[in-house]
Amino acid sequence: MAMQRTPLLMARLIERGAVLSPDTEVVTATAEGTRRQTNRDTLQRAHRLAHALRDAGVGIGDRVGVFMWNGSRHLEAYWAIACMGAVLHNLNVRLPGHDLDYIINHAQSKLIIADADLLPLLEPLAGRLPSVEKIVVAVEEGSEDWSTSLPGPVDYEDFIAPWPEGFAWPSLDENAPLALCYTSGTTGRPKGVEYEHRSQYLHTMAMCMTDAMGLSATDTVFGVVPMFHVMGWGLPWAALMLGCKQVMPHRFTSPERLVRLMADEAVTLATGVPTIWQNVRTACMARPGAHDLSNLARIVSGGSAVPPSLARWYWEALGVEMIQEWGMTETSPLATFSRRRWTPSRTRSATAPDEYLAEVAKAGQALPGLEVEIVDEEFAPLPHDGQQTGEILVRGPWVCADYYRDPQPGKFHGDWLITGDVGRIDNRDCLVLADRSKDLVRSGGEWISSVDLENHILALAGVAQACVVAQSHPTWDERPVALVVLDRGAELAVDQVLEHCSNRFAKWQLPDDVLFVESIPLTSTGKMDKKAVRADLAESGYTLPGLRQASP
Amino acid sequence: MAMQRTPLLMARLIERGAVLSPDTEVVTATAEGTRRQTNRDTLQRAHRLAHALRDAGVGIGDRVGVFMWNGSRHLEAYWAIACMGAVLHNLNVRLPGHDLDYIINHAQSKLIIADADLLPLLEPLAGRLPSVEKIVVAVEEGSEDWSTSLPGPVDYEDFIAPWPEGFAWPSLDENAPLALCYTSGTTGRPKGVEYEHRSQYLHTMAMCMTDAMGLSATDTVFGVVPMFHVMGWGLPWAALMLGCKQVMPHRFTSPERLVRLMADEAVTLATGVPTIWQNVRTACMARPGAHDLSNLARIVSGGSAVPPSLARWYWEALGVEMIQEWGMTETSPLATFSRRRWTPSRTRSATAPDEYLAEVAKAGQALPGLEVEIVDEEFAPLPHDGQQTGEILVRGPWVCADYYRDPQPGKFHGDWLITGDVGRIDNRDCLVLADRSKDLVRSGGEWISSVDLENHILALAGVAQACVVAQSHPTWDERPVALVVLDRGAELAVDQVLEHCSNRFAKWQLPDDVLFVESIPLTSTGKMDKKAVRADLAESGYTLPGLRQASP
Repeated sequence: MAMQRTPLLMARLIERGAVLSPDTEVVTATAEGTRRQTNRDTLQRAHRLAHALRDAGVGIGDRVGVFMWNGSRHLEAYWAIACMGAVLHNLNVRLPGHDLDYIINHAQSKLIIADADLLPLLEPLAGRLPSVEKIVVAVEEGSEDWSTSLPGPVDYEDFIAPWPEGFAWPSLDENAPLALCYTSGTTGRPKGVEYEHRSQYLHTMAMCMTDAMGLSATDTVFGVVPMFHVMGWGLPWAALMLGCKQVMPHRFTSPERLVRLMADEAVTLATGVPTIWQNVRTACMARPGAHDLSNLARIVSGGSAVPPSLARWYWEALGVEMIQEWGMTETSPLATFSRRRWTPSRTRSATAPDEYLAEVAKAGQALPGLEVEIVDEEFAPLPHDGQQTGEILVRGPWVCADYYRDPQPGKFHGDWLITGDVGRIDNRDCLVLADRSKDLVRSGGEWISSVDLENHILALAGVAQACVVAQSHPTWDERPVALVVLDRGAELAVDQVLEHCSNRFAKWQLPDDVLFVESIPLTSTGKMDKKAVRADLAESGYTLPGLRQASP
Repeated sequence: MAMQRTPLLMARLIERGAVLSPDTEVVTATAEGTRRQTNRDTLQRAHRLAHALRDAGVGIGDRVGVFMWNGSRHLEAYWAIACMGAVLHNLNVRLPGHDLDYIINHAQSKLIIADADLLPLLEPLAGRLPSVEKIVVAVEEGSEDWSTSLPGPVDYEDFIAPWPEGFAWPSLDENAPLALCYTSGTTGRPKGVEYEHRSQYLHTMAMCMTDAMGLSATDTVFGVVPMFHVMGWGLPWAALMLGCKQVMPHRFTSPERLVRLMADEAVTLATGVPTIWQNVRTACMARPGAHDLSNLARIVSGGSAVPPSLARWYWEALGVEMIQEWGMTETSPLATFSRRRWTPSRTRSATAPDEYLAEVAKAGQALPGLEVEIVDEEFAPLPHDGQQTGEILVRGPWVCADYYRDPQPGKFHGDWLITGDVGRIDNRDCLVLADRSKDLVRSGGEWISSVDLENHILALAGVAQACVVAQSHPTWDERPVALVVLDRGAELAVDQVLEHCSNRFAKWQLPDDVLFVESIPLTSTGKMDKKAVRADLAESGYTLPGLRQASP
């Protein structure tokens, strides 16, 4: 044994920040303002929570469900549950009841920590969760009058109050599980991915590299990505490790409130899916200059492709650098990052804006340690020429090897995960996402990219959101229809949208119809829910213009 | 098995940069200019070298000695030897012959790769290295007429020429050794530290974090730290992984040449011990504005404490940020970094210069994953109050657990490495180095810090280097003597130095003498060699002023 065999355990990483920056704050949004505590407080409270959980019978390997908004108590739950050797089970508050029922019972969670205002979503499951022995309720301003028929209810503060700080984190195998997150896949039942200490440790190290998020102890980070899904992209761990100031929106996720919070707390880095940043853009445009976002330097966005016009707006209007990432529940989740415009030089100008914006349009390069490949239908590797599109495979130390108590051999090819995403890889190994096959519109034997159409429509002044879906057509199989949300006060006609599209697309690729709508339905992870859009159109009896009967 | 069990092997990390930035260059200084090759070339040549080494009988676990300056072929040797599962044995070209003899025989190196101009240093060992079967000679401009009586000599280019690119790196245990580096400790025989794939992998990830070196693919890095000692602080691995441009000085390490190379190649980040940067400062001051160093953004320095006046000069004269690191052969070597003045904000000013300079004067905070502690003589932990000084202990996944075939139980306390360095830790867990006990001057029962005196003398205009050593004294045990190297053209009198010292030090702490000298002897790793200074003084019959006999 030449070098020390120190196991890669999260407890060793994340206590660091509270020692280095004890007075730095964790800020949680409340109905009337904010609630604040220091990193030192958070450490001490995490220790007390671990004592309380152990006293409640939570042992090594036991699953603890967490049903909470982003907030300081959620952060304490991350810390205590993971480091005490239990398994933090992310419960997505936007999952339908039958999926919640399924995943809690599948995980056999022993205890649930929930925000009081979310109890009504759990209440219908009372009596159907035999493994759950206790529910710990986190109360914020305005939800003091909670009640639940779930077993063993206790207020979070009462739960941790009797216990001292100073919990001796156990020595664990570095491959011991620390969290469990179910995919919100649209097909089949949710599948659980079990994260391990080693995999999350390496993921945390990688995301803090300059060429990834470039996180620093001097950052004030704002995770709009929910911590109830895919570990909040790992930002809570990274911020704890470095000792960053953390700002958390809790349930107050209206674009106006997000902007105000970023300005008031001098946020430097924020994370979220593209739809969040489209809404924030709309809010900023509605009240230009109302809030000072001059500290905001970087937005990390992903989960679905970042529209180039969105990155351009943030760069040109706010001077904010957008970084695109790509990943999924099965990849912990961060796998690739677009190349940053970062330059270490003091005098040379950074990458030219157009070059930078072209890079942000790509999902980017694999983090060190991961490998990304594209293959054809026979799993033969395709050239990295930026032209050929194939199924994306990924492997590496924070990629899942199987699903929790749910064998899915069809999801793997050798030691590669079959991601279900499709893309191209260019000659610098940059991944460019293409439409998932279900997002392509098949018209007359040709394919039309709904994502390309959406991105182009989004570049039109006055457009806040755009969603293109396929509608059946007796002659052409499918034809595209565009749903458009306008900026507040903006006015556009259908012909203007179509004329704009014809600047780039052939006539047969243009949408058959443009529908101006108030909003686009979102999935539980905040992406546009095209399945719901198509269902809504069907329910409303929508018919393509060319197929409508002439009125009598 | 929930997550993939991908072993942490260097081959998986370092091929990345050549794929991401294939056309970026590795630049090696030559007698007349530079020699350049791309990252793609380097990858292909490393593959060919691996084939050649395997053909020469080098198998998994075999030691290969490397006796070279920093250059592209040295980089290829790092790559090929480590990734093929052999063990790269760093041979410090500044070691005395008897130490070289000892470490080559102790490591039982099978093959040596050497720069042609360094052969005269190896020649005296001919016939005394029974394990060595072959010597591969790297030839640069001006050393074409090499010869050696060492066995099996072959030109490096002839050695790799027959072989194709495309070497299938073997699958190894992540704890397999990849390099062996002997300490150049001044007491006892050199002791070998064996680095492993996992330890170097984690070290590489950590040093690339924003809060460490902040390395990025957009950096042009200049490792003045020799690759023949402690893996060049890991910079070669990190630069390969990220795809940085690398500039290498080879044997041309005069300060004037270093400055010219940094200017010509638009270097953004450089690494080296403080004496290098003192010499470079002198060269810059001798010809102000002669070279454009406006791209240089960061200097990482360590190995001995960075004088605050040196950091201030680089900041005020060149706008260059100095980052102090601390570590040693046994810690791979990077263990702590001073807090950077990095700020992610676009509008807020960075840390105020004085605050930043105060931070650089500290060795800094432990990298994530490492733990640093200070203890008293009974190994009881001392408070982190910035006041109490103790022996520094360190542990973590890239700290050695023992020495290569040389048990040294006295170097460890439980799973802690006893570093032999002493220091304080402040309330933000910043390590501040104090004098090693052998660098303290014991005068009349009190201690005088030679490092504090040196740092203060260095702050005096006109002083290029300062070295304070103890001299025996019949009454006071020891008294300090200062050796001072002046900037070119500067003039100072002994009284001016003493008067400057008396601004801060008590009368009994002032040096008994100030000697103006041409240079200070350096150790094999470029630090001031106080042992040699004391020996020189003894040899020259030096006597303290107060002890000299009155002339007859």
